[in-house]
Amino acid sequence: MNRYGRIFSVQIFGESHGLSVGIIIDGCPEGIRLNKNDFENDLLRRKTGDFGTSPRFETDIPIIKSGVFNDFTTGSPIIIEFENNDIKSEGYEKIKNIPRPGHSDFVAYKKYNGFNDYRGAGHFSGRLTIGLVGAGVIAKKIISEIDIKSKLISAGGLTNIEQAVSSAINDADSIGGIVECRINNVPIGLGEPFFDSIESLISHIIFSIPAVKGIEFGSGFRSAAMRGSEHNDSLINIDGKTNTNFSGGINGGLSNGNEIVFRVAFKPTSSIPKEQISIDINSGQVKKLEIIGRHDACIALRALVIVEAAAAIALADLYLINKNYR
Amino acid sequence: MNRYGRIFSVQIFGESHGLSVGIIIDGCPEGIRLNKNDFENDLLRRKTGDFGTSPRFETDIPIIKSGVFNDFTTGSPIIIEFENNDIKSEGYEKIKNIPRPGHSDFVAYKKYNGFNDYRGAGHFSGRLTIGLVGAGVIAKKIISEIDIKSKLISAGGLTNIEQAVSSAINDADSIGGIVECRINNVPIGLGEPFFDSIESLISHIIFSIPAVKGIEFGSGFRSAAMRGSEHNDSLINIDGKTNTNFSGGINGGLSNGNEIVFRVAFKPTSSIPKEQISIDINSGQVKKLEIIGRHDACIALRALVIVEAAAAIALADLYLINKNYR
Amino acid sequence: MNRYGRIFSVQIFGESHGLSVGIIIDGCPEGIRLNKNDFENDLLRRKTGDFGTSPRFETDIPIIKSGVFNDFTTGSPIIIEFENNDIKSEGYEKIKNIPRPGHSDFVAYKKYNGFNDYRGAGHFSGRLTIGLVGAGVIAKKIISEIDIKSKLISAGGLTNIEQAVSSAINDADSIGGIVECRINNVPIGLGEPFFDSIESLISHIIFSIPAVKGIEFGSGFRSAAMRGSEHNDSLINIDGKTNTNFSGGINGGLSNGNEIVFRVAFKPTSSIPKEQISIDINSGQVKKLEIIGRHDACIALRALVIVEAAAAIALADLYLINKNYR
Amino acid sequence: MNRYGRIFSVQIFGESHGLSVGIIIDGCPEGIRLNKNDFENDLLRRKTGDFGTSPRFETDIPIIKSGVFNDFTTGSPIIIEFENNDIKSEGYEKIKNIPRPGHSDFVAYKKYNGFNDYRGAGHFSGRLTIGLVGAGVIAKKIISEIDIKSKLISAGGLTNIEQAVSSAINDADSIGGIVECRINNVPIGLGEPFFDSIESLISHIIFSIPAVKGIEFGSGFRSAAMRGSEHNDSLINIDGKTNTNFSGGINGGLSNGNEIVFRVAFKPTSSIPKEQISIDINSGQVKKLEIIGRHDACIALRALVIVEAAAAIALADLYLINKNYR
Repeated sequence: MNRYGRIFSVQIFGESHGLSVGIIIDGCPEGIRLNKNDFENDLLRRKTGDFGTSPRFETDIPIIKSGVFNDFTTGSPIIIEFENNDIKSEGYEKIKNIPRPGHSDFVAYKKYNGFNDYRGAGHFSGRLTIGLVGAGVIAKKIISEIDIKSKLISAGGLTNIEQAVSSAINDADSIGGIVECRINNVPIGLGEPFFDSIESLISHIIFSIPAVKGIEFGSGFRSAAMRGSEHNDSLINIDGKTNTNFSGGINGGLSNGNEIVFRVAFKPTSSIPKEQISIDINSGQVKKLEIIGRHDACIALRALVIVEAAAAIALADLYLINKNYR
Repeated sequence: MNRYGRIFSVQIFGESHGLSVGIIIDGCPEGIRLNKNDFENDLLRRKTGDFGTSPRFETDIPIIKSGVFNDFTTGSPIIIEFENNDIKSEGYEKIKNIPRPGHSDFVAYKKYNGFNDYRGAGHFSGRLTIGLVGAGVIAKKIISEIDIKSKLISAGGLTNIEQAVSSAINDADSIGGIVECRINNVPIGLGEPFFDSIESLISHIIFSIPAVKGIEFGSGFRSAAMRGSEHNDSLINIDGKTNTNFSGGINGGLSNGNEIVFRVAFKPTSSIPKEQISIDINSGQVKKLEIIGRHDACIALRALVIVEAAAAIALADLYLINKNYR
Repeated sequence: MNRYGRIFSVQIFGESHGLSVGIIIDGCPEGIRLNKNDFENDLLRRKTGDFGTSPRFETDIPIIKSGVFNDFTTGSPIIIEFENNDIKSEGYEKIKNIPRPGHSDFVAYKKYNGFNDYRGAGHFSGRLTIGLVGAGVIAKKIISEIDIKSKLISAGGLTNIEQAVSSAINDADSIGGIVECRINNVPIGLGEPFFDSIESLISHIIFSIPAVKGIEFGSGFRSAAMRGSEHNDSLINIDGKTNTNFSGGINGGLSNGNEIVFRVAFKPTSSIPKEQISIDINSGQVKKLEIIGRHDACIALRALVIVEAAAAIALADLYLINKNYR
Repeated sequence: MNRYGRIFSVQIFGESHGLSVGIIIDGCPEGIRLNKNDFENDLLRRKTGDFGTSPRFETDIPIIKSGVFNDFTTGSPIIIEFENNDIKSEGYEKIKNIPRPGHSDFVAYKKYNGFNDYRGAGHFSGRLTIGLVGAGVIAKKIISEIDIKSKLISAGGLTNIEQAVSSAINDADSIGGIVECRINNVPIGLGEPFFDSIESLISHIIFSIPAVKGIEFGSGFRSAAMRGSEHNDSLINIDGKTNTNFSGGINGGLSNGNEIVFRVAFKPTSSIPKEQISIDINSGQVKKLEIIGRHDACIALRALVIVEAAAAIALADLYLINKNYR
């Protein structure tokens, strides 16, 4: 269940307040140059501590446990592990029977009959996305000719991001945001028919990222209000270039060689400093709740590199699958 | 690639103008009462011939090839096959080197080096969704206590659906639409952590439906403009009922017992009667194109039952997986 | 469950006395020349009606339902279907509560709570192996440079096959046999580490063939009585050729470029004309049983082409996986 | 590739002389009591240092990295990791271009273009089987009512095991052996039709264990010399008990409730102290080779618990799959 990908396959593990979190990658080709430093840049982009992000401080040093030898991938499974060091679990003990509104606390308790690790949301924590970022670094190397870039295009409904975040912080609150991802230099024909369309595979992994509520490709929801004569992109050369790009670089689930564009909606972080109301799951009694953990005012700020990583993982898998047949 | 699901697993097959299309279902429990008549209602809802839909007329009689004995499922693979009878391929022969704008023609040609069956878009045709509907009928029986209903909430940007479709037909054009799906009586805890979240699995199969450009759950894209204090749903009883339902019935990728709500954006049908411009893929010469196949002015009209079927397939799989552990 | 293979993936369907049996193949590359005649030779080798085989007579004409266009594979799923025409189910109705010794009757009844199609063993019939042969024909085309040949090296413990079979027929009985398969021109490095070793994948599919009780590679069971100094094959050139071949062409789960050799033990057919003893599964009463279906005196006779097909399917999948990384 | 199982799914990782080896388990039900001590007994049975086994000494302390909280499984992925401490890699550096006869050295070098970790056979080392033993401990808890026992029934062709091993040690050589595994209290109906037969799944994982050359169920290779009238097991009661057990507890790929019996042939360890002949893979020059690593005179001695673990993993997966439908 915690696995994604058919050839370039990733499996995520760990808990927010356990020993560590990380990812195991199977199916990575041998001979890719890889060492710790390669992760630095992307991990920094995900890091907490900046304006609007959680003050939890983890060094986030990747430990490459296996699959790399003399700074090159070997073809055997790669584990990237991140130790949890800055753990403060006391707050969670106190509220473990009072589910935080908007969080996984209640359903995780119910699904696992109370055996789930509730500290910091355990396996459901946003901390697990660091594994995605780790795998994304490697995925990007496999599809090195493809360029993936994401951007926060709005936060709390505003394009003036900084102002929106400040305002939320001042109000002891949080805000959502929209991340746009643009992918260039994609070869024609990535994606597989029907169930393994590019959109299917990208949306699958994107919705694994906590706090995602929507995804759209190309014209997206706007397309519902459009006409075919307006929406249809027309070929302008035999390399597949089209005059418009409402399709977002994908036809019939396959890349068409134009820019792939998709947008992801992130809800506001569930954990907010403001007092909230919940109930005690045993007694049903209404309880006031103040969340003492450390959290992000706008999780979308840190999501840019995670969205890129997710896209890279999906495309690396499709890229390797496509190579079978060439 | 053409497969979806881990326990209740479906594989789609066929081409628009081949002998038949259909679906093979593996992992269906034995002892489910099933015969041809069970498919009638849902197939009728998908059927062409109505106002705003394609005049291609197929009898769409399901042939149960295997897996059913004495009107009960046996536990072995079930094939539901639909013969293609009303085929008119001549038009396609004429335009086979002139990709239809907005269609899979060009990328399918490129990906498969010209070996793809181009008649009526072949394996990329919307006709294949009939297999989803067939599998959906069976999936609904597995999760018989769960209620799935979808509705076309807008077409061409209007809520007056009939008027929007008429207008598009008059203009020899097509329009998109938004389908909303509401699912009730879902047990708490369906979905698996991280990669197999409910949203991941539903979006995966929804994006396999041709013409889908976006999906959002609960508050969806609106959530990006909201605040946590507003968005967080609070528990009001120990059965999981919440005061609001911005989460759309899902927390941490797991069903929380409230109504699951998602919306799907369908683009306008690519094939329109209006003259369009494309190029000859060999010479690069600009060509005028009149599409002579038979197509839908608003594909979203027929998509309601397909969206329900897709949701049912995803939930039936999660339901059976969940039973492992109980 | 009824599926095998990661890239070249096959799923089997049908029942012995249902409408048809067959196989659906996903992941087959496009551009492979394929028509009905290609199946003729291998189907003939599996056919009944010869000395020592069942008198059930099926025309065994392959119907290519999808995935082939103008005599070439298209890259979309291929269905090969075989209709069941020569069905005589009356005998089975009479004995449906009296499980045939050595057969799946009892366990299938128990597993599926009586909903299984019991006629001719239903989905558990040897007739389903025709699907393997069909997929094998295509698999062999994918790995056309690889040469796969199998041979019946003993029957009923004797190397004089014809005599052993005659004797069994005379006694209204059946006999087992050993099939040896030799595979040449295998590139070095097929197979994946640990769980997807060549032996793992070949044995997995071989044990799907009804009546198989054992498999051994290279030195096989004899190796248990050998010494390392004797068993170790030594390289004699840098192309991987070894002085001996006790390893059977495989080291560390990977092909080493030498001949792959494995042997498969087939038990005697369970269905024999001789009177046998069983019980009524409802009353527990002891019953005499005379099997009136049509069966093989030595199933191993027909298994040669099935073993080859199974090996070809396994190798075609590994071959395509291996191409990812080159 | 390094993954096995559909619901109870294991993925193996690590290299013999890397930081660690281990296994990640997905799909383990929550609420299973588990701590380090549970592994002690089985790890001890696999341990080196005894008569006839390698003098490499690892403490083999299992580190439970994730998926366990307050001594109970949580339902999220479980990592069991074993650090490599007693590493002596110098010997390998010297012989890295001279493949050890009977070993994976040559094919791993070829498959991975020289990027494989060659020290102690890297990912192809027998050391990785410790992960299987770790997962086996957990699997056994899932199927706690099932009893799995294996026994070394011969070594070097002799049933006097100790004498056979002594003799091999005296000759600076190694010997093979046959392990028999007997499984009792298996519920009727485990196994899935066709490709996921019990034999398919057990053989798949058993052939992942290094040095295995053959497997047979029940009558196995002997069955090829038998007659149907002799081989067919007859029911003696309605619970499925049969008068004989030539089928080895399996019919039609499904457990029939009788004892499951299978035997596994282990070849003699490839690494022997005796001088051997190989070639330099670059120059092709013949080289004398003395293996300085630490190895087992009879690997089958340590394989008993590994075979049990492999069987437990296969059965735990089938057990959980079977629960879907009940």
